[in-house]
Amino acid sequence: MKKENQSLEQIGGKLAEASSVLLFPHVQMDGDALGSSAALCKALRNAGKKAFILIEDEVPEFLSFLDNGYCTKDQDCIEDPDVCICIDCGETSRFPGREQAFFKGKTTICVDHHTTSEPFADYNYIDGSSAATAEIIYKILSAMGLPIDKEIGEAIFTGICTDTGNFQYSNATKESHLITAALYDAGIDHSRIAVEIYQNTRVEKIRITSKILDTLEVFAGGKAAAAYVTQDMLRQVGAKMEETEGVVETLRNIKGVEVAAFVKEQDENLIKVSMRAKTSGNVADIAALFGGGGHVKAAGCTIRKGLAEAQAELKEAIEESLRKAKA
Amino acid sequence: MKKENQSLEQIGGKLAEASSVLLFPHVQMDGDALGSSAALCKALRNAGKKAFILIEDEVPEFLSFLDNGYCTKDQDCIEDPDVCICIDCGETSRFPGREQAFFKGKTTICVDHHTTSEPFADYNYIDGSSAATAEIIYKILSAMGLPIDKEIGEAIFTGICTDTGNFQYSNATKESHLITAALYDAGIDHSRIAVEIYQNTRVEKIRITSKILDTLEVFAGGKAAAAYVTQDMLRQVGAKMEETEGVVETLRNIKGVEVAAFVKEQDENLIKVSMRAKTSGNVADIAALFGGGGHVKAAGCTIRKGLAEAQAELKEAIEESLRKAKA
Repeated sequence: MKKENQSLEQIGGKLAEASSVLLFPHVQMDGDALGSSAALCKALRNAGKKAFILIEDEVPEFLSFLDNGYCTKDQDCIEDPDVCICIDCGETSRFPGREQAFFKGKTTICVDHHTTSEPFADYNYIDGSSAATAEIIYKILSAMGLPIDKEIGEAIFTGICTDTGNFQYSNATKESHLITAALYDAGIDHSRIAVEIYQNTRVEKIRITSKILDTLEVFAGGKAAAAYVTQDMLRQVGAKMEETEGVVETLRNIKGVEVAAFVKEQDENLIKVSMRAKTSGNVADIAALFGGGGHVKAAGCTIRKGLAEAQAELKEAIEESLRKAKA
Repeated sequence: MKKENQSLEQIGGKLAEASSVLLFPHVQMDGDALGSSAALCKALRNAGKKAFILIEDEVPEFLSFLDNGYCTKDQDCIEDPDVCICIDCGETSRFPGREQAFFKGKTTICVDHHTTSEPFADYNYIDGSSAATAEIIYKILSAMGLPIDKEIGEAIFTGICTDTGNFQYSNATKESHLITAALYDAGIDHSRIAVEIYQNTRVEKIRITSKILDTLEVFAGGKAAAAYVTQDMLRQVGAKMEETEGVVETLRNIKGVEVAAFVKEQDENLIKVSMRAKTSGNVADIAALFGGGGHVKAAGCTIRKGLAEAQAELKEAIEESLRKAKA
């Protein structure tokens, strides 16, 4: 049964048979992991089943509106669940503290859209062509004939929006829009969701972003941009490192910039670098020079040096890479 | 014939009959005005007609990809045009330098989605329920049976995306998504469009944004946020005032903030204020206190005082408004 995908009908059938279902989003939940889980959990409860989302870390505040009594850290919330289903993750390392609980399910299911995932559960539906796992959840609910109410629709919408960058990223498809259009029939309030997701920025995030952009440097004839953050800067405004998310994209969005690097001081001699390329740049190659990796357009590396030294080496590598690309 | 809407078929019929069509987007073109115009212009040319977009100000750089030889300032580019059609604008004050040229059309048409627009042309199609004029253009082309090629599809997509804030604003509808889904059949490269629109920020815009956010002040118990820009700050980084667009939304997006105010020093004793409210706030009322106006969630005013004095009065008015709302 393992190592290949089952059909949506087979997955739906297993869920329909179950009286109790435990759902497993990945750690560091994002809008798709929690949105997909909340949508399925609500639909299963609507159908009279016992269902919970088992988590091991906190629900991020900007997604807390999705958790209407679904999330629990109590691994015994359901004794002997009929189905354990992992959502938006295709390997047990994405739910490390819940692996044992997962395999207690009489049937295990994996639903995911990451192309790197390998079928490992009893039933698997891994579709790399889906922009979001939430789209697959929509199709499973349709296959099961379960109605999509407003709350379920808004949770699915959250997953699609956040994983497609509001339909901008290349993964968005015609189907993403068709599914979203169908969600309007469930009465979703899409602009309320946008407020929940995007209009709840901590002021500390604004302050650290501003401080970081004060360090912005454009070099390599305008083709590269870099900025940095130090532990001291974070302390000054009371921000967390995770609140610097998005900075590297801002750097990449500068006109003419092909390669953007965001340099994060984790510790005195521990520098993490996030890089993005726009169209012709290749940051995977640059990251590899420092023992890092990633994709052509998004990569990263760790440099065990002081900030100034790391920055100097990085800038040189970026300039060299852009020179080569030109040649 | 005036003062009421015609049908899409009637509008399409008039365009189909015409041999030459001159298109009029509004001044300070945005993605919807130029996207809609470019889409219609290309479709009319594909159909063998003579068509130009007549403009009076510059095409913004981030939209220049839409102008593939369509835009001209030459008011004589078409002698005696069969149709003059104004697009995304419902009053002549929105194309002041081209009003005379507009009424030279043997037939005049107005296509718009602004609810404040009044039918004033021979033929009018004003639909306030459309999220973007680009959606109406899509429907006119469909009514005319004109094929939508990749370029036309991408121009329509640009209009829909920019006017709906990537499907986030409350004006986005099920139809916005259904039309967008249909555009995929024309082969649109949606992520290329996103790069064109959003990944071409002048570095000066980043620098001035950072400088402005350094002035960020949160007050009224966390319910209000304000920031300012001076002419001196603009000079220091070489930015233009229009590049401060978006700042007031960033302020509004702060968690807990109900009222955001962005204070712009236009001149020594001339302050312009842009305000936004999130959910319960009402900035129209605050703007009215200073002789300004707008909507409940987006309003503005002009204060003929120095920056410090204007700011102090504004803060007091905002605090008072939030106190009242609470009471």
